[in-house]
Amino acid sequence: MDFTIGCTLPYRVKSPTSFVFNIEAVRHPGQVITAETLTLTPDAAVERWTMPESGNRYLRIDAAPGPFTLDYRAEVTLSPVLEAPEAVTEIPAKALPLSVLPHLWPSRYCQSDKLNRLAQRTFGAETPGYARVNAVCNWIHDNVDYVGGISDEMTSAFDTATQRAGVCRDFAHLAIALCRALGIPTRYVSAYAHRLEPPDFHAVIEAYLDGPSGFGWYLFDPTRKAAPDGLVRIGIGRDAAEVAFSSPFGDIVYDKPVVWIEPKRGTVGAVTTQAVRAEL
Amino acid sequence: MDFTIGCTLPYRVKSPTSFVFNIEAVRHPGQVITAETLTLTPDAAVERWTMPESGNRYLRIDAAPGPFTLDYRAEVTLSPVLEAPEAVTEIPAKALPLSVLPHLWPSRYCQSDKLNRLAQRTFGAETPGYARVNAVCNWIHDNVDYVGGISDEMTSAFDTATQRAGVCRDFAHLAIALCRALGIPTRYVSAYAHRLEPPDFHAVIEAYLDGPSGFGWYLFDPTRKAAPDGLVRIGIGRDAAEVAFSSPFGDIVYDKPVVWIEPKRGTVGAVTTQAVRAEL
Amino acid sequence: MDFTIGCTLPYRVKSPTSFVFNIEAVRHPGQVITAETLTLTPDAAVERWTMPESGNRYLRIDAAPGPFTLDYRAEVTLSPVLEAPEAVTEIPAKALPLSVLPHLWPSRYCQSDKLNRLAQRTFGAETPGYARVNAVCNWIHDNVDYVGGISDEMTSAFDTATQRAGVCRDFAHLAIALCRALGIPTRYVSAYAHRLEPPDFHAVIEAYLDGPSGFGWYLFDPTRKAAPDGLVRIGIGRDAAEVAFSSPFGDIVYDKPVVWIEPKRGTVGAVTTQAVRAEL
Amino acid sequence: MDFTIGCTLPYRVKSPTSFVFNIEAVRHPGQVITAETLTLTPDAAVERWTMPESGNRYLRIDAAPGPFTLDYRAEVTLSPVLEAPEAVTEIPAKALPLSVLPHLWPSRYCQSDKLNRLAQRTFGAETPGYARVNAVCNWIHDNVDYVGGISDEMTSAFDTATQRAGVCRDFAHLAIALCRALGIPTRYVSAYAHRLEPPDFHAVIEAYLDGPSGFGWYLFDPTRKAAPDGLVRIGIGRDAAEVAFSSPFGDIVYDKPVVWIEPKRGTVGAVTTQAVRAEL
Repeated sequence: MDFTIGCTLPYRVKSPTSFVFNIEAVRHPGQVITAETLTLTPDAAVERWTMPESGNRYLRIDAAPGPFTLDYRAEVTLSPVLEAPEAVTEIPAKALPLSVLPHLWPSRYCQSDKLNRLAQRTFGAETPGYARVNAVCNWIHDNVDYVGGISDEMTSAFDTATQRAGVCRDFAHLAIALCRALGIPTRYVSAYAHRLEPPDFHAVIEAYLDGPSGFGWYLFDPTRKAAPDGLVRIGIGRDAAEVAFSSPFGDIVYDKPVVWIEPKRGTVGAVTTQAVRAEL
Repeated sequence: MDFTIGCTLPYRVKSPTSFVFNIEAVRHPGQVITAETLTLTPDAAVERWTMPESGNRYLRIDAAPGPFTLDYRAEVTLSPVLEAPEAVTEIPAKALPLSVLPHLWPSRYCQSDKLNRLAQRTFGAETPGYARVNAVCNWIHDNVDYVGGISDEMTSAFDTATQRAGVCRDFAHLAIALCRALGIPTRYVSAYAHRLEPPDFHAVIEAYLDGPSGFGWYLFDPTRKAAPDGLVRIGIGRDAAEVAFSSPFGDIVYDKPVVWIEPKRGTVGAVTTQAVRAEL
Repeated sequence: MDFTIGCTLPYRVKSPTSFVFNIEAVRHPGQVITAETLTLTPDAAVERWTMPESGNRYLRIDAAPGPFTLDYRAEVTLSPVLEAPEAVTEIPAKALPLSVLPHLWPSRYCQSDKLNRLAQRTFGAETPGYARVNAVCNWIHDNVDYVGGISDEMTSAFDTATQRAGVCRDFAHLAIALCRALGIPTRYVSAYAHRLEPPDFHAVIEAYLDGPSGFGWYLFDPTRKAAPDGLVRIGIGRDAAEVAFSSPFGDIVYDKPVVWIEPKRGTVGAVTTQAVRAEL
Repeated sequence: MDFTIGCTLPYRVKSPTSFVFNIEAVRHPGQVITAETLTLTPDAAVERWTMPESGNRYLRIDAAPGPFTLDYRAEVTLSPVLEAPEAVTEIPAKALPLSVLPHLWPSRYCQSDKLNRLAQRTFGAETPGYARVNAVCNWIHDNVDYVGGISDEMTSAFDTATQRAGVCRDFAHLAIALCRALGIPTRYVSAYAHRLEPPDFHAVIEAYLDGPSGFGWYLFDPTRKAAPDGLVRIGIGRDAAEVAFSSPFGDIVYDKPVVWIEPKRGTVGAVTTQAVRAEL
C-alpha cells in the first residue's frame, strides 16, 4: 500500500528560536520511503539526528524572527504483516529480550506503577496475548470519552484513568500504562493516520507479543479512529514526551498545522479482524 | 438494641499538648446514650464543643509531658429504622433541602469534581435510589482491595479510584465521591462497629435519599465488614478531615488504641437485605 | 463607606435547570445592606437558605428552557475596623475557639496536610501573627504568576504550590493551605472588589488572629489587586467549593457575566499599611 | 583512586522468579573495573545486556523457590576530572548534541513540564552553568528534609516539590526536574557512594554542561552525603525507573541488602570546591 503524506507547520517566530521537529516518517523494512522533500520558508540549515534505539528522525532548525514554515511531503510504501489474533500470545518475563525492558518501565505520562491493581483487577482474567491488549483498548474505548480540548500536554494516564476523557494521546497513554502494568512491553507511536477525522497527527500504541512470525511489536489504536494498516509511523517512544512533533526553544506563535495522508495504490482498511505488525 | 462501647487511647506526651478528640458517641433520637464516663489519667480539664450542623462532640484537653490516657465508655441504645430498599429513591436537585448542599460539594478526600465521568459512565444506568448507592458500594467492594497500611492519612478518593487498595476510610471516601458525582448528597460517618475484625474505629457513609418515612440519611458500609444495625456513630462530616478521633497539637507518641463494642440486649445483624436509617 | 454593587448573569437554558446561586452580599454588623433588588427574567420563584455557620445566602431558582437572566443590585455600607498590624498576633491551639476548627482542617482545594513542611520551612521563622500571614501573601505574590485561563475549576493549592500560576481563586487557596499548615485558621471569601481590574467576582482570605479588639477574622488579598477596605463579601467558606456563585443542575450555556461595584460615599483604599477586619 | 565495592542481596523466593539486576559498576574510561566477581547461591545462569545508550549492565537470573543470594564484588579505579566550577557554563539549546535530548524530556519521576515556572522563578536569575545547578542542589538541601521512609517508590519530583521530605532518590528527582525545566539536560545516577552513612545504594545527578574540556556530564549530589570523587557509578538513566537495582518478576521476600565501598589507594574527598566530571 502506497501513501502520500505531509504536513505544513506555520510559525510566527518572535525571538531567535531553535526548533526540534519529529515529523518525518521513520524508516524500517515495513515502511519504505520512496520520495521525500522538506521545504523551509525561509530556507535554513537542518541538523539531523536519528535516535539509534527508535529510529526516530529528529531535525533541528534555527529560525530567525519573522514567519517560518516547515513543509514536509513523502511517498511511503507500507508492508504491514497481518496475522490471526488468536495466534498472538504474551511473552513471559524470563523470555523477553532485555532490550525491550525500557517499554516495561513507567514513564512520564504512563504511570504503570500506580495502575497495577486496576490493571490486574480489570484485565487479569482476560486471555493473555493479543486478546488481552485488545480488551484493554476496548475498555478504554468504552469507558473514556473522546473529547477534544479537555486534556492538555500535562495530562497523564493516571489522570485519564479517573477523569475518563481525552484525545488520542491520552487514550494511548492509558493503554500503555495498563499494558505495562500487566507485564506487556508497550510503546507510543505517533503517525500519519489514514481515515482519521479531522486529519491531524495521531497516536497509537504497539505491544510486544509473540506471534506466528516470532516476537514483535503489534499495533493497536485505542481510539479506533484510524485504519490500522493505514498508519505511517513517525516516532516511537516511551510516551508522548519522546515524540513531540515540534519543540521550539524560543518565543513563537504557531498557527494551525495542516496534516494529511492520501492512499495512492493498494487497498486499505480491510483488517479490522486481523493483528497488524508494522514489520517482521 | 443496646451496646456498651468504649476506647482507651494511651499517649506519651513529649511537650505540652492540646488534644482535640472526637470519640464520644453522637446524640440523636435514634442513638440514645444511657450512661457515659470519660476518664483521663492524669486528670485534666475538658473543654467541649458540639458542632451545630453535625452534632459531633469535640473535646479539647491540655496534657502535660508524661504519660496520658483517655478512657471512654458508654451505654447506647440504637433504634435504627429498617425499610425496604426498593422503596428508597433519589431526590431531584430541585427538591433537595438546601441545607444538605455541603454534602454535594467536593471535599479534601472526596474529589467528586474529578470523578464525574467515571461515576456517570459506571453508574449512570443503575436504578436511581438505594440500588444505585448500593451498586457504588458493591463496585468498590469488588474492585478495591482491603489492605491495611497501603494508604495513609493523605490518600484521597482520586488516588483510590486508580490505585484500587485501601482501608475503610478509603472505601468510604471513594463511595462518597462517586455518589456526590451522581448528584446524591453523601457524608462520612465514623463509628464503633459491631463485628468489625479486628476491632477499631470504623468508617461508613450515609446517603441522603427519599424513603417511606420521607427524606433522610441512609447508611452504607462499602467494606461490608460491620453489621449495619450495629454501628454507634461518633462523627459525621464531609470526609475524614472533619472527624479525626484525635488531633494532637504538640509533640506526642501514641501507643496502640483499644476500641471495643459489645451488644448488651437485642438482636443485631439480621438486616443485610434492608435499608438502614439511623433515625427518622 | 458606601458602595453600590451588582451583577448580571445571563444564561441560555437548554433543559429544565435548578440553579443554586451565591451572589448576594452577606449580612453582618460590619456590612449593612441598605437596599437590595433581585430581578429574574423571566420571573421565577426563589427559594432561600442562609447557612447558619457562615451567613452565606444561597438562592435556588428553577428555570425553564430559554434565555434566563439574573440581575442583582444592592447598596451596602461597610464599616471595616482598621488596626495596627504589629498588634495582631496568633492564637495558640489551646486557646482557639473550637468553633473555628473547621477552618484549620484541610479542604478540597486547600490541602494543608500536604503542605506542612513547605509552610514550616518557608514561614516557620516569620514573626507570628499578622506579619506571618502577610509574609505568606507576599511570598505568593512574588512566586506565583497571575495568569488568566492557566488554571481551571479543579486546580488546587497543591497544584499551584508547584505550577506557580493561577488566578485569585488559586492565590487564595494556596494562602489558605499554607496558613492552615502553620496552625492559623483561615477561610475563603468571595467578594465584589473595588478597583479589581478587570471587574469580576474576587477571592480573598481571612485569617483568625488575636488583635486589639480580641479574636477575629483579618482580611488579606494575596493578589493585592483590590482595595482591602473596598470588599463587599458574598460567601465565606473553607474554599471555593462552598461559595460557587452559580451551580446549575441542568444543561445550560452561560454568557459573560457582568460584575460591578461603585463607591458612593467615603474614602476607600488608604489602608495599605493597616490590618483590616470586616467586623468586630 | 581505587575502591573495593560490593553488595549482598538475599532473597527468599516463593515462586519461580526472573530477576533483573542493575548492580554492577558501569565501564567507562574514567571508571575502570580491574577485578570483578559475581556469586550466586545457589548458582544460576546469567543473561546479560548492556544498554547501548547508557552502558548500564543489566543481568537476568531465573531463581527457583528457596533462598537465593546474589553477591557482587569489584575493584574499581576512578579517574574523575576536577575543574574550576566558574569555568563550567551552560550550553544553548541550539548547540546541544541532539543525542542528549532525552535528558531534557520529562520522565516518570521528574515532571519538568509541571515545574517550569517554579524553576524559572527560583533559579532564573542565577549565574548560568555549574553555579546554577549548584544553586538548585543547595536549595533542595535547604528546603527538603532528608527523612527515611517518608516517601515511597511512587513518589515523584512533583510530590517532593511540595511535600519537602524524602531520601536521596527524591532529592535527585527534584534536582533533575528543576534542571531540565531550566533547559539543562540532567540524568539520574545510581552509585556505590563513599562516606554515605548508613551505607546503601546512593542516587546523585549529572548535568550536561560546557567546561574547560568541552561538553560533558558534571556530577552533583543534592544530599551532600557522599564524597563526589568517591562515587562508583552503576546505572545512568532518565530517573530511578531505569536503574532499579533489583526487579523481581515473581513472588519473593527480600531481606536487608548489604552495600559497601572501601577506598584502597589514593585520596578521596578533597574536592568540595571543584566541579567533578566522571570522565572526559
